[in-house]
Amino acid sequence: MPRFITFLTDFGLRDDFVGTCHGVMKRIAPDVEIIDITHGLEPGRVLQGALVLANALPYMPVGVHLAVVDPGVGGSRRALALRDADGRLYVGPDNGLLVPAAERLGGIAEAYELANPAYALESVSRTFHGRDLFSPAAAHLALGVEPSELGPPLDPDALARLDLPEPEVGSNRIRATVLYVDRFGNVALNLTREHLEQADIVPGKQVELEAGGERYFAVAARTFADARSGDLILYEDAYRNVALAVNRGDAGAVLRVRPGQELRIRLDAP
Amino acid sequence: MPRFITFLTDFGLRDDFVGTCHGVMKRIAPDVEIIDITHGLEPGRVLQGALVLANALPYMPVGVHLAVVDPGVGGSRRALALRDADGRLYVGPDNGLLVPAAERLGGIAEAYELANPAYALESVSRTFHGRDLFSPAAAHLALGVEPSELGPPLDPDALARLDLPEPEVGSNRIRATVLYVDRFGNVALNLTREHLEQADIVPGKQVELEAGGERYFAVAARTFADARSGDLILYEDAYRNVALAVNRGDAGAVLRVRPGQELRIRLDAP
Amino acid sequence: MPRFITFLTDFGLRDDFVGTCHGVMKRIAPDVEIIDITHGLEPGRVLQGALVLANALPYMPVGVHLAVVDPGVGGSRRALALRDADGRLYVGPDNGLLVPAAERLGGIAEAYELANPAYALESVSRTFHGRDLFSPAAAHLALGVEPSELGPPLDPDALARLDLPEPEVGSNRIRATVLYVDRFGNVALNLTREHLEQADIVPGKQVELEAGGERYFAVAARTFADARSGDLILYEDAYRNVALAVNRGDAGAVLRVRPGQELRIRLDAP
Repeated sequence: MPRFITFLTDFGLRDDFVGTCHGVMKRIAPDVEIIDITHGLEPGRVLQGALVLANALPYMPVGVHLAVVDPGVGGSRRALALRDADGRLYVGPDNGLLVPAAERLGGIAEAYELANPAYALESVSRTFHGRDLFSPAAAHLALGVEPSELGPPLDPDALARLDLPEPEVGSNRIRATVLYVDRFGNVALNLTREHLEQADIVPGKQVELEAGGERYFAVAARTFADARSGDLILYEDAYRNVALAVNRGDAGAVLRVRPGQELRIRLDAP
Repeated sequence: MPRFITFLTDFGLRDDFVGTCHGVMKRIAPDVEIIDITHGLEPGRVLQGALVLANALPYMPVGVHLAVVDPGVGGSRRALALRDADGRLYVGPDNGLLVPAAERLGGIAEAYELANPAYALESVSRTFHGRDLFSPAAAHLALGVEPSELGPPLDPDALARLDLPEPEVGSNRIRATVLYVDRFGNVALNLTREHLEQADIVPGKQVELEAGGERYFAVAARTFADARSGDLILYEDAYRNVALAVNRGDAGAVLRVRPGQELRIRLDAP
Repeated sequence: MPRFITFLTDFGLRDDFVGTCHGVMKRIAPDVEIIDITHGLEPGRVLQGALVLANALPYMPVGVHLAVVDPGVGGSRRALALRDADGRLYVGPDNGLLVPAAERLGGIAEAYELANPAYALESVSRTFHGRDLFSPAAAHLALGVEPSELGPPLDPDALARLDLPEPEVGSNRIRATVLYVDRFGNVALNLTREHLEQADIVPGKQVELEAGGERYFAVAARTFADARSGDLILYEDAYRNVALAVNRGDAGAVLRVRPGQELRIRLDAP
C-alpha cells in the first residue's frame, strides 16, 4: 500500500486550490503523506509539467503520483490512472502530462479511465477535476484500491502524447529549443552533453548564441564557479540537460528567452 | 482529539512567518498534522480570507481551523476560539474572518476570548500574534485542551461580522461585485446560479458586461471547453459562485477588475 | 534520534527544487518530518538567509536544520555539518549561512566537512548540492548517523563568517542598515530597542529619516495600531529588531529601500 502521494500542478499557491486538494486526500486517506513536487508551473503549460515531472520522479519515493496541468478540464479529454512497470501509480488528465515520466520509469504497464463515481467526490464540478476527481482517485489508490477498480482499461498506445521538440545538430550550428527557465534564470535546452560532444564543444570553448535576433557569447563550463561573475556559460545542469546560466546572474533575463523559443548555437565562433 | 490543524493566512511564503508558526505548533503538538489551505491572500484582505476559508473548509478534515488575516494586530480587536455545532474548532482574530465559515458549517455554538497566558508563548509580541498567540492556542486545542480553558466565554452575537456585498438583480440588469480573482484570472462574483436563472440567463445566451467604464460581451456556458479560446464566458465555478473566465486566457487581465469592484451584467444584449 | 528536519533555502517554489529535496529526504528517512521555514529568500542572499535562520530557529523543534543559500555551489566552498551545544544539528554550505543561528543557540560545538560519499546521492551534480549532498546528509543525520561519520572534523574557528553590518549611534544621528524587507513591506534595521533607548527615542517621539537621498518623518510607536493609517512608524518588531512600517501600508515601497542600503535616523527632528 503506497504511503506517499506526490503532487504537481499549475495551481499556484495564491489560492486555496492546492490546500483544498490536500484536504480532500486527507479526508479519504488520513495516513497518507503528500509530497508537493511543485505547484508553480505556468498555467496550462502541459509540456513543462511533463518535463518537470519526469525530472523529479526519479528522486521521489515510489507511490501514487498525482499531476494536474489541465487546460482541457470539462472538455472531452479523459481522466487517467496509470501503472508503470515498477508499480508506481499515476493519476492525471489524458493530455500527455504523465507519459514522459512513466516512460522514463519503466514504461506504462496498464492504463485506466477514471469513470467509477465511487472514487470521486459526490458532486464533480466541470472546472476543478483536481479536487473532485483526481485527488479522490489518488487517495483511494494510496489506500490500496486497485487501479482497475477506477474504470475501464485503456490501450496505453492510445493515450495522448506530447510532441517533444527535437534539436538539429549540424556541422557548425545547433538549433535548440528552450525547455524551461527556472527561478535562478537558468535556461534549460533540449540538448544533452552528447549533443555538445558530437559538436566538439568541450569545457573552455567559446560559442556564439543567437536568440530573438540578438547574438551573445557563451563559454562551455562545468559549473557556475568556473566562470567569472556575469559570464554566460553553457553547462550540463543537474537534470542532465544542457543549460545556459550567468554566474550570480539571470541568463533568462539576459537572453530574454521563453520556453518554446528557438535558440541557435554557432560553432565557428573565434 | 483533533489530529489536523488547517492553516490559512495572508503571510505569504517569501518570509519565515508561516514556517515559524509551523515550528511553534510542532513544538507544542508534535503529532498534529498541519494542512496549509493557503497563505497567498492579499495582505490585510479580511473579506477575501473569510470567503476562501468558507469555500475550503467543507473539503477539510474536521479539526482545528486556524486563520490569520489580521491588519488590526496589536490594537483592541479580540483574539478568538470558536466551536461550531459539528465540533470543529476555529482560532483567529475577532474581525469577521472566521464567521462565514463557521456559519456555513452548522453555526457558532461557543465563542471564547484567548486570554489565558498558559496557552500562549511566554512573550507575546505586539505585531505577530499568529506566532505568539494563535498558533499556540491552535496547537493546545489540537492536544485536547477545552476551548473554555483558553479564556472567558463571549456571546456569539457580539462577534465582529463582515458586510458581504449583496447583488441587485433587476429586470434587465444585475449589479454584482467582484469577490475574488484567482491565479488563472477567473473572476468570481457575488452571484449564484439562482441569480442567473432568475434573470433567465441560460447556457448559450450572450450578455453584455460593464466594468470600469468599459463594455464586453460574454456568453453563458457550462465549462471552459464550451467556448472558443479567447471568449469571455459566464459560468458557475467549482465553489458555486458565478464567475467570468477566458478559455485558456486571463479574464481578470481582460476586464482589469479587482476584488470589491462593481460589475454590471446587461440582459438585453442582442 | 531527531524527528524533525527544518528546511530553508532560496530555491523558490516555482520549480521542483524544494519538492525534489523533500523526495530525496523521504526516500532515505521516510518517518522524518520536514518543516519548511521558507524557500522565498532572494536568490544568493546569504546574509539574509543567515538572519532569517537565526530568527526562526528558536521557534523550531530541536532537530536537523538544513539550510541552502549557496551561490558558490560547485566551487571550492566546503559543505558542512555542525552540532551546537544543545545538540541541534546543522547542514549547509560553509559560507557563513549557518553560523549566526548556531551561535545564537549555544555556539558551535563540533564541525565536520561533508566528504563521505556513503551519505550523498550516488551521482553528485556540480550545481545542485541541495539535492545531491545536503538533503541526503540531513536525512542520514535524522536517522541517527553521527555527524563525525560524514567526514573529517573542522576547526569551528576556521569556518567562513559573514560581516554583519554594525550601526553607528551618534549624539544626534543613527546610521543603520536595512536588513530585510518583508512581504508586508516592513523594513527591519540592524538596530535593537537598546539603540533607540540610548538615543532617547521613546514611543510618541517623532524622528526624521534619510534614505536614498530623500527625507521622511516617522513616529516611534509600540505597534501598528498606535499610528494612523498611512503613518510611518518606528517600532520593535516581533524578532526584536527595530523596524519601519506603515500602518495598513507598505513601508518598503514608501521608502524605496532594499536590504543592504543605508538609512539614517536624525534625532534633532522638531
